[in-house]
Amino acid sequence: MTKTPYQTGLATRLASRSQTLTSKTSGLAPSHLQANLIVLPARYAPSFRLLCQRNPVPCPLLAESSSPGSFSSLTSFLRPTPTSKPVNLAKDIDLRHDAPKYIIYRDGKPVEEVADLSAHWGPDHVGFLIGCSYSFEEALASAGLPPRHIVQGRNVPMYRTKLPLCPAGVFTGGTYVVSMWPYRAEDVEKVREVTRRYVATHGEPIAWGWEEVRRLGIEDVSRPEWGDAPLMGDGEGVLAEGNDEGVVPVFWGCGVTPQEAVMRAGLEGMVMGHAPGHMVVLDVKDHEVFGPEDVLEG
Amino acid sequence: MTKTPYQTGLATRLASRSQTLTSKTSGLAPSHLQANLIVLPARYAPSFRLLCQRNPVPCPLLAESSSPGSFSSLTSFLRPTPTSKPVNLAKDIDLRHDAPKYIIYRDGKPVEEVADLSAHWGPDHVGFLIGCSYSFEEALASAGLPPRHIVQGRNVPMYRTKLPLCPAGVFTGGTYVVSMWPYRAEDVEKVREVTRRYVATHGEPIAWGWEEVRRLGIEDVSRPEWGDAPLMGDGEGVLAEGNDEGVVPVFWGCGVTPQEAVMRAGLEGMVMGHAPGHMVVLDVKDHEVFGPEDVLEG
Repeated sequence: MTKTPYQTGLATRLASRSQTLTSKTSGLAPSHLQANLIVLPARYAPSFRLLCQRNPVPCPLLAESSSPGSFSSLTSFLRPTPTSKPVNLAKDIDLRHDAPKYIIYRDGKPVEEVADLSAHWGPDHVGFLIGCSYSFEEALASAGLPPRHIVQGRNVPMYRTKLPLCPAGVFTGGTYVVSMWPYRAEDVEKVREVTRRYVATHGEPIAWGWEEVRRLGIEDVSRPEWGDAPLMGDGEGVLAEGNDEGVVPVFWGCGVTPQEAVMRAGLEGMVMGHAPGHMVVLDVKDHEVFGPEDVLEG
Repeated sequence: MTKTPYQTGLATRLASRSQTLTSKTSGLAPSHLQANLIVLPARYAPSFRLLCQRNPVPCPLLAESSSPGSFSSLTSFLRPTPTSKPVNLAKDIDLRHDAPKYIIYRDGKPVEEVADLSAHWGPDHVGFLIGCSYSFEEALASAGLPPRHIVQGRNVPMYRTKLPLCPAGVFTGGTYVVSMWPYRAEDVEKVREVTRRYVATHGEPIAWGWEEVRRLGIEDVSRPEWGDAPLMGDGEGVLAEGNDEGVVPVFWGCGVTPQEAVMRAGLEGMVMGHAPGHMVVLDVKDHEVFGPEDVLEG
């Protein structure tokens, strides 16, 4: 993997803030936690917290605005063990500017892509940060299992599924969004082991194998709803069942899920989110927020 | 609802312990938390904790043996808010005796129903208590929404579904088990509101309506895998789609899910669980472990 120009969370946030960085963040600031963003009117905040509590795999809640309207002061929920104090995720953060690109939703429908949220963020908006699987890219690479989308310099493919979320308050009718990383079938157990302890950033995969494509209700792996189409290992064509021998799709819960949930619930008013693949990168490093040691046993 | 002879958790546990009580616990000790039990060889404990963490709606983990082999000293995980201390669930508890009936599993298969576990519990066994929806029966009754199975003096029907659990370590291939309580369609939102704050005991329903029966992969509502078949409101026949006008099935995550997960994973060795419907009743009352107040808003 080539070295990125942005080695820290702060460097990545400042580059987004100055609009020097406007592209996807996969591969940037290795080992730093990356986060999905969703910004909701305060009246939806209790339902959203409950949605995250009931669906922690696609929606691992890291932090939220410390009060409605706040974009730079966050309350962190991330604690490595049940008895430790919450981790401070980032100094000098501005949720209106620190993702490279954003999407604006009105009444549950995406209406606009914007470079920053300063013209849209109101005194009643609450921002939520959700863990992102980019956080364990480096760990997989170190284990000899580099994510193919990184090697090929592409965005990870993301898909709508028919797998229902547990409903919570106003959030009904939602389904999982998943990201997909292709791996050799014999490597799947190792991939599960490496990612298991990343409980704050989706953890181990939720499904793997071609059979699961149908069970998840994904129509065509070669046509993701977000990100880039997955390629074969030789980069010569789009991945499909059987055309890349021994390779299977491996699916993780994806932090785009809350944005999909907003659309399914048809929430009224203005909602904002990061553009898929364009994350807010934090100061904290992944190993600082591992689950308990014994997550790896058994 | 008629008054039960057992008004407290301790009274119910002692009656089970002396084998005075050998039947289902639904309706007993109103407002007290009831718990599902699963007892695993210690080597599976880390995977099981992770399974609960990733699937908190069907598997809300309340407590576990404070060390392998312990059946009377428990570590509680239940705290009303993120900053409060864990609640002490029960004084004078013996997991080997305090459910009215148990099931023994060998190598992932149920082999025997027993009155107590004293001949089976070994120094390597770890017991886990999982929240049970019986805990909010009284709250629903107080809201004018008495559970039909209580009114009719029957066990709640429980079903296997095709809704996958998020896998965790050795636990792969598991699916939700759900309980079903029939309600009038126009009462479903009220039922959701009343049960929402019971986050430690499955919380609000995961699905409702006849369409959801098919989506969950339940073949026939009149033939539950555990418990009694649901009856029509007049008690004259078994409930089926359209034969009880305006009534729809409402489904909750069910604490039998871990036992089903043990079978799906084909765990080797001896596993024990409560017999479905025959719970361990605790000292703590449901309102002591509500989720945060704001769970009810929005």
